[in-house]
Amino acid sequence: MRAVFDARLKELWEDLLEMSRQVDSAVSRASEALLKGDIDLAQTVIDDDVLLDRIEERVDERCVVLIAQQQPVGADLRTIIVALRVSASLERMGDLAQHIAEAARRAYPDSPVPASHRTIIEEMAAAARHLTSLVPTMIEGHDTKVAEEILVGDDALDRLHEQAYAILLDKSYRGKAQETLDIALLARFYERIGDHAVGVSRRIFYLVTGAISDDGGNI
Amino acid sequence: MRAVFDARLKELWEDLLEMSRQVDSAVSRASEALLKGDIDLAQTVIDDDVLLDRIEERVDERCVVLIAQQQPVGADLRTIIVALRVSASLERMGDLAQHIAEAARRAYPDSPVPASHRTIIEEMAAAARHLTSLVPTMIEGHDTKVAEEILVGDDALDRLHEQAYAILLDKSYRGKAQETLDIALLARFYERIGDHAVGVSRRIFYLVTGAISDDGGNI
Repeated sequence: MRAVFDARLKELWEDLLEMSRQVDSAVSRASEALLKGDIDLAQTVIDDDVLLDRIEERVDERCVVLIAQQQPVGADLRTIIVALRVSASLERMGDLAQHIAEAARRAYPDSPVPASHRTIIEEMAAAARHLTSLVPTMIEGHDTKVAEEILVGDDALDRLHEQAYAILLDKSYRGKAQETLDIALLARFYERIGDHAVGVSRRIFYLVTGAISDDGGNI
Repeated sequence: MRAVFDARLKELWEDLLEMSRQVDSAVSRASEALLKGDIDLAQTVIDDDVLLDRIEERVDERCVVLIAQQQPVGADLRTIIVALRVSASLERMGDLAQHIAEAARRAYPDSPVPASHRTIIEEMAAAARHLTSLVPTMIEGHDTKVAEEILVGDDALDRLHEQAYAILLDKSYRGKAQETLDIALLARFYERIGDHAVGVSRRIFYLVTGAISDDGGNI
C-alpha cells in the first residue's frame, strides 16, 4: 500500500516538474519573441498553452484519485493539497507567458517595447526567466536554499517593475498611449510571474520545513 | 459519521459564503473610494484584506482536517477540492479590490480616473460589482441559472475592458502617462475580478452538474 502510494506521489511530482519546465520554456520563448519580434516563436507559446492546461487537469485528477484510493493523512495529505495549489500557480504562469507572446504577436512587425523601455524589459525578462528556471529545481530538490534564491530574485524583479513604471512617469517620457499601455501590462505580467514563482516556492518550503510561510498562506 | 461530515461541510461552505460577501463589499467600497476620491474608505478595503486571508487559511485547514478525518470519496471529495479552489479565487479577488483601493489612495486628493475614462470605469465598476454580488448567490444556492448570468455579465465586462483600452488608443486621446498607466491597470483589475467570478461559478456548476467546464478546468 505504501509502495503504491509513493509511486503515485512520484508520478504526481513528475507531472509538476514537467509543468514547471514547460513554464520556464514558455517564459523564455515569449520573452525572446517579444524582444526579437519573432511572430513564429510567439505563436508556439500561444499554441503550447493548451498542453499546460492538460497537465494541470491530469494533476488535479491524480490528486482526487490519490486521496480517494489511498486515504492519506498528515504529511501525505498536505503534499497532495500542495500539489493542487502548485499546479494552479504553474498553469497561471503559463497564461502570463501566453499574454506576453500575444503582445509580441499583436505588435508585429513592430515591437511593443519602445526604445525607452528596451533595457528594463530585457532585465525584467531575464529576472523572470531566472525565477522560472529555479522553480523546477525547487520542485525536484525541495531545496530551501533555492527558496531563498527565489525570494531574492523576486525582490529584484519587483524593483525592476517599479523602475519600468518610473520611466513611464518621468517628465522626459514622450511615449504614445499604446506604448504606455503595453509597458504597463508587460511589466505587470513579469511581476506576476515572479509572484507565482514565490508562491510555488513557499508552498514547497512549507512542505519541507513544516513552517507557516510569512505571507499568511499556510498551504 | 455522515451527520458529522455534513455539518463540517456546511461550515466550510458558510466560510466560503462569508468570504464571497466580504469580496463583494471590498469591490463595492474600492470602486466607491476610487470614483469619489474617498481615502478613508480606500483604507478600510486595504486594512480588511487580512480578514479575507485569515478566512482562506481557515478554509484550507478545514479542508485538510475534513479529508483526513472523514476520508471522503467521490462527490464529497470533489466538493472539498472545489472549496479549496474557490477559496483561492476569492482571496485573489480580494487582492484585486485592494489594488483598486491602493490606486485611489495613491492618487488622493486627485482621482486616478481621468475625465476621458470616468464613464467607462463607472461602468466597469458596476459590471464587476454585479458579478461579485452574484457569487454569494451561486455559493449559497448552487444555482445554474446564476452561473449563466455570471457568464453573460463577464462578457459585458470584457467588452468594457476592450473599450477602456480603445479610448486610450484613440487618436483624440491626450492623457498623461500616469493616467494611461492607471487606466491600463484599473481596467485589468476589474477584468480579472470578472475572470475569477467566472472561475468560481464554473467550479460550482461542475459540482452541481458533474459536467466538465468548457475552459478545460475540470475541478
